[in-house]
Amino acid sequence: MRTIDWVDGAVEIIDQTVLPAEERVLRLHTVGELIAAIQSLAVRGAPALGVAGAFGVALAARIHADDPVALDRAVRRIESARPTAVNLARGARRTAARLPLGPDAVLAAACAIRDEEIAASTSMAYRGADLVVELCGPRPTMLTHCNTGGLCAVTVGTALGVLGELHRREQLAGVIASETRPLLQGARLTSWELGRWGVPYRVAVDSAGPFLMARGEVGGVILGADRICANGDVINKIGTYAHALGARRAGIPFIVVAPESTVDTDTPAGVHVEIEDRGSAEVTGWSEAVNPAFDVTPYDLVTAIVTDRRVIRLDRGEKL
Amino acid sequence: MRTIDWVDGAVEIIDQTVLPAEERVLRLHTVGELIAAIQSLAVRGAPALGVAGAFGVALAARIHADDPVALDRAVRRIESARPTAVNLARGARRTAARLPLGPDAVLAAACAIRDEEIAASTSMAYRGADLVVELCGPRPTMLTHCNTGGLCAVTVGTALGVLGELHRREQLAGVIASETRPLLQGARLTSWELGRWGVPYRVAVDSAGPFLMARGEVGGVILGADRICANGDVINKIGTYAHALGARRAGIPFIVVAPESTVDTDTPAGVHVEIEDRGSAEVTGWSEAVNPAFDVTPYDLVTAIVTDRRVIRLDRGEKL
Repeated sequence: MRTIDWVDGAVEIIDQTVLPAEERVLRLHTVGELIAAIQSLAVRGAPALGVAGAFGVALAARIHADDPVALDRAVRRIESARPTAVNLARGARRTAARLPLGPDAVLAAACAIRDEEIAASTSMAYRGADLVVELCGPRPTMLTHCNTGGLCAVTVGTALGVLGELHRREQLAGVIASETRPLLQGARLTSWELGRWGVPYRVAVDSAGPFLMARGEVGGVILGADRICANGDVINKIGTYAHALGARRAGIPFIVVAPESTVDTDTPAGVHVEIEDRGSAEVTGWSEAVNPAFDVTPYDLVTAIVTDRRVIRLDRGEKL
Repeated sequence: MRTIDWVDGAVEIIDQTVLPAEERVLRLHTVGELIAAIQSLAVRGAPALGVAGAFGVALAARIHADDPVALDRAVRRIESARPTAVNLARGARRTAARLPLGPDAVLAAACAIRDEEIAASTSMAYRGADLVVELCGPRPTMLTHCNTGGLCAVTVGTALGVLGELHRREQLAGVIASETRPLLQGARLTSWELGRWGVPYRVAVDSAGPFLMARGEVGGVILGADRICANGDVINKIGTYAHALGARRAGIPFIVVAPESTVDTDTPAGVHVEIEDRGSAEVTGWSEAVNPAFDVTPYDLVTAIVTDRRVIRLDRGEKL
């Protein structure tokens, strides 16, 4: 199953806002529809956003073939639809570089980005599973945060793809999926994917993770990244940092899985990244809230980063 | 306003399960009704549970005045209605010690426990406010977790009472109230109380706290306790430990405010305390969950404990 794809002249996505209650496919025909889907989180996750950005430019190239000013404006709107994940702007820009060659070349470039993400997922799944066995021992219970499955990356995903591979190897006791407030990507999306794969799992509130680690119920933490800075700082869903603190105190591995497309060596450290605040309404609906969608996990709390090309052992002083 | 009291032969409580949408008073006439209110969290919070336990025995003494076997069974049911907070069993046992003197003496003992909690709240508010000014500087923004206001302790509460006192002294910039999943005691109850008091506040998801501390947006963490062990380990709402880890890494004070009735020197350390798991339904409603209602914060992460009689500076090596 592909969670985002180009089908008959439009972008098709699984609408992540209505899972797990409903499995609905959205067809996006215009740049406006695509941007609305990105901003409502109908499509989300760094790798999927890269593909969405690329397909968005492919849509724009067809719609505005005869209007370079409108085309340029559309590309810039896509690039900046959400600020934190580097993949969105990068996918859009890479595809936009082909605009002089015409709409078909643009679409081919976008499909290439999609195919790269599919290949990257497979590569991360194998490499990450090997690393978990090495660091966490045989058949650990792993804790994951947010959703890093096929829903965030076309097919099998990043960190969740690793857990799926461990399950296939019969080297996984089970998963604790943190619910991931405010939008419950863990409780809604990760649980849906793990259930489909037959992986045993339990959901926990986000704040329980560090305590479950302290009680010895977690063999390691594995999760994704929206951006990885040059110094190894990890930008990811809010709550990642709290889980990293818990893993450090418990003395268990903290593993980040993300494609090379997430690595942003132009950004020296996490402090330079704009952290999106998504407003009060997502949190309570009845009072003012502070709602950072992401946080910064300092590199010294990260045991290792697994990409589709390499393993970077930050715990051994390796650099990006 | 008293959130729990004895009124005309019955126990009256504000039903905490329906706040902030509705301010409903429940009248509890039987031990069964009282235990149901405790288990549904219509009344909750360590000090309020102590008063509830005491009033429960007063109810039992009237209902079973001529049946010592039923009376004894009722007292034991009250003591064990919830396992984690020491106050419930202690309030019930202190009151039950007066059973040989008859129902009126039992009720007088229960009212004395209520009055002690009211006096303790006032004492903690002053002492805690002095300590916050000393440790966190002038007009800090304080982060609090769960609900520690009048709803948990008859009148002004424990940690929230301190924040109310700081607000009256004009020494508080504002409060970040963590929402406190799964039952949202922060988003529902703390926000309701802070709003009534006119204290500026914003709600945050539980997992955002450590990141807000890392960004320098929090001057200190202040919260309550359900039980304090002999070594200083603090048993409190799930998420307390994660916030303590965040405070330690950010180098800001982590202050626990709880009455002496919460101190349990018979329990040497947190590892000996039964942590209630409240089941899956509270968390998602559609998948299995691990749902510890409390966690253990090791004493080395606690800056100070404020009670109604003293300040224990654990950061300076002071002991209980």
